[in-house]
Amino acid sequence: VRLLTLARDLKRRKARERQQLFVCEGVRAIEELLRSPLAVRGAIVAPQLQDVPRGAELERSLDALPAHDHYRLLVLDAVQDPGNVGTILRTAAALGVTAAVALPGTVDLWNAKVVRSAMGAHFHHSAMSSTWDELDAFRAARGVSLWATDATGDPLERDGAPRRLALVVGNEGSGVSDAARERADRLVAVPIASSVESLNVAVATGILLHELRR
Amino acid sequence: VRLLTLARDLKRRKARERQQLFVCEGVRAIEELLRSPLAVRGAIVAPQLQDVPRGAELERSLDALPAHDHYRLLVLDAVQDPGNVGTILRTAAALGVTAAVALPGTVDLWNAKVVRSAMGAHFHHSAMSSTWDELDAFRAARGVSLWATDATGDPLERDGAPRRLALVVGNEGSGVSDAARERADRLVAVPIASSVESLNVAVATGILLHELRR
Repeated sequence: VRLLTLARDLKRRKARERQQLFVCEGVRAIEELLRSPLAVRGAIVAPQLQDVPRGAELERSLDALPAHDHYRLLVLDAVQDPGNVGTILRTAAALGVTAAVALPGTVDLWNAKVVRSAMGAHFHHSAMSSTWDELDAFRAARGVSLWATDATGDPLERDGAPRRLALVVGNEGSGVSDAARERADRLVAVPIASSVESLNVAVATGILLHELRR
Repeated sequence: VRLLTLARDLKRRKARERQQLFVCEGVRAIEELLRSPLAVRGAIVAPQLQDVPRGAELERSLDALPAHDHYRLLVLDAVQDPGNVGTILRTAAALGVTAAVALPGTVDLWNAKVVRSAMGAHFHHSAMSSTWDELDAFRAARGVSLWATDATGDPLERDGAPRRLALVVGNEGSGVSDAARERADRLVAVPIASSVESLNVAVATGILLHELRR
């Protein structure tokens, strides 16, 4: 209801100027909006949207990603600490990731602590939730390889990565899930001293994304 | 008083086995202890220690670092968030840093939140406090270069770093201090997207330490 009230309020120029928000309506306009760097504050969806093919498409947000020759998806596989997830989104935006994708078990990307730690990354960077099925379909359709981080993985070398790549980072305690391991074309790791059990997941993500950057 | 009680208790084998702690006494033994990877749980110091040159030396912990051909010091210049500092200590231990050095303005390295975030790094890695004067003296005596991180700095290339290097990372909001800038042989940075203001300091530290690793 609050979103409807806001949308109604935004019909007035004064309200738009005060809130620095506007309403965007219609399938075509929303398709464009989703391809832009603008942030969407909220969505109001009529049930009839599903009756139009392009409308149904809109709700599958991974597919809203433009078709590119070069992807860097960062997949969060049950990362649970809001501070870590926010820092990861900030890092992903800084290091050229196309989109961050949260799998089930990951803390809500719009949790206030996540938003605070992300320092604005939500507003100029794609971050979305997805199931494994949706991610599998997207990867199959677009030919995206999957690498998962794991302590037993290979150290990354520069320039050795496929042009379309989804990198999976895992839970703070247990690492990436079996589902990620089964799907992974490769396991990768940051080599560390044997006296230390692991790196913080946001730090490890930063190092790997930096290595993958071109 | 609690430390004295503990030290007294540790005279009994049963107590040592239960606590997994022991008492180490005497200047020579403590010199060796400080060169070992063992963690020191506490120190009880007699005022007379200052009367012996080697005793006075013991209290200047930077000088207790063994003389090596290769150093990687990580210098924390007013890093204030305990979670960041703990994560940085964990990262430094994992990525081969010789010692982490906290300058004034940095949160106490033994703050409970720092210790928790460091995930045990305190116990097998050198972490100490220091003033700029002490660090300057140590750098002069051992020929250690100083690099400071700054958004305007050069991207790091691999294999381009001096064998003895102190890397300074700065405050979450304001970056490294003027004192660091004045002393720096070089300013270095991780290149990031223009839409993002900065990386989290622990993530940036991880990326730079990884790059410096050899």
